[in-house]
Amino acid sequence: MEDDAKREVLTRLAKIEGQVKGISRMIENDRYCVDTLYQISAAQGALERVAKETMRQHLEGCVVDAFKSKNKLDREKKIDELMSMFSKFGK
Amino acid sequence: MEDDAKREVLTRLAKIEGQVKGISRMIENDRYCVDTLYQISAAQGALERVAKETMRQHLEGCVVDAFKSKNKLDREKKIDELMSMFSKFGK
Amino acid sequence: MEDDAKREVLTRLAKIEGQVKGISRMIENDRYCVDTLYQISAAQGALERVAKETMRQHLEGCVVDAFKSKNKLDREKKIDELMSMFSKFGK
Amino acid sequence: MEDDAKREVLTRLAKIEGQVKGISRMIENDRYCVDTLYQISAAQGALERVAKETMRQHLEGCVVDAFKSKNKLDREKKIDELMSMFSKFGK
Repeated sequence: MEDDAKREVLTRLAKIEGQVKGISRMIENDRYCVDTLYQISAAQGALERVAKETMRQHLEGCVVDAFKSKNKLDREKKIDELMSMFSKFGK
Repeated sequence: MEDDAKREVLTRLAKIEGQVKGISRMIENDRYCVDTLYQISAAQGALERVAKETMRQHLEGCVVDAFKSKNKLDREKKIDELMSMFSKFGK
Repeated sequence: MEDDAKREVLTRLAKIEGQVKGISRMIENDRYCVDTLYQISAAQGALERVAKETMRQHLEGCVVDAFKSKNKLDREKKIDELMSMFSKFGK
Repeated sequence: MEDDAKREVLTRLAKIEGQVKGISRMIENDRYCVDTLYQISAAQGALERVAKETMRQHLEGCVVDAFKSKNKLDREKKIDELMSMFSKFGK
């Protein structure tokens, strides 16, 4: 991952850790479930953005290299990996 | 799209049309909402499979070509498109 | 389902049938995969709105009744059903 | 939230905090993007399970109470909240 992208992603992950701690406190303090659910949703959205940034770096880096490769198996393997990522993330 | 993949996807889409007609009938006949929701979910799953097949064909075809291209802008454009697809589908 | 909601949902489903037919034509005519994927995404969004309307009717109707019931098992059964719907839809 | 459910959810959240720390380490150490993406997906799945448990507690608690209420506005408000949760989570 490039240095700028790395720093940004690490800052986001530190913030997500704080959000998860906050959710624990809300549950300990019996806060209204719907408010807790909104916080969980915010943490999920933040993780999704980290996933998208990681995916973009992956596409720009190793996928471009693999697709340039003359070896058909290398390309097939990357496509299978992308399809699997595509099933795990997105939306 | 290759001929085999095309035929398979078209068969699936014909089946989805039938599923959508079936959902209309369930609503007309005041069937239990939860049963209707299961049918809607089945149609969504079937559309998702068509999306995945289309995505795979897209990766194997034009994305591989674009990533081989020496033109960085061509590659960037395909990556942006993939990221946008990734946000629309998956899971 | 109330008559107004029913009519609206049936109109939407007729439109979705048209969208699915349109996707078949796009694939037959070898249209650019990304354009086809946008159409699939539009049909999925439309089905999702039908699911949400059906869910709302379900909550307003049978779930309210079941939750008023003094029978704890009736309530539990509805909650399990809702949790299962919640896993199938949403987002 | 009942005590047992609370303890379980807090244990899960502590584990998620650890997972998020682990993702930071993977990015710092330039681990293969796809491995990092699998870890992000695991953390998302774990947060989703916390959301579902919180949602179930919410349904069993305040939603059942609100639906028993004779005040139609109380019931409507809870339904709107549920529909909003339903859009944020699920799948």
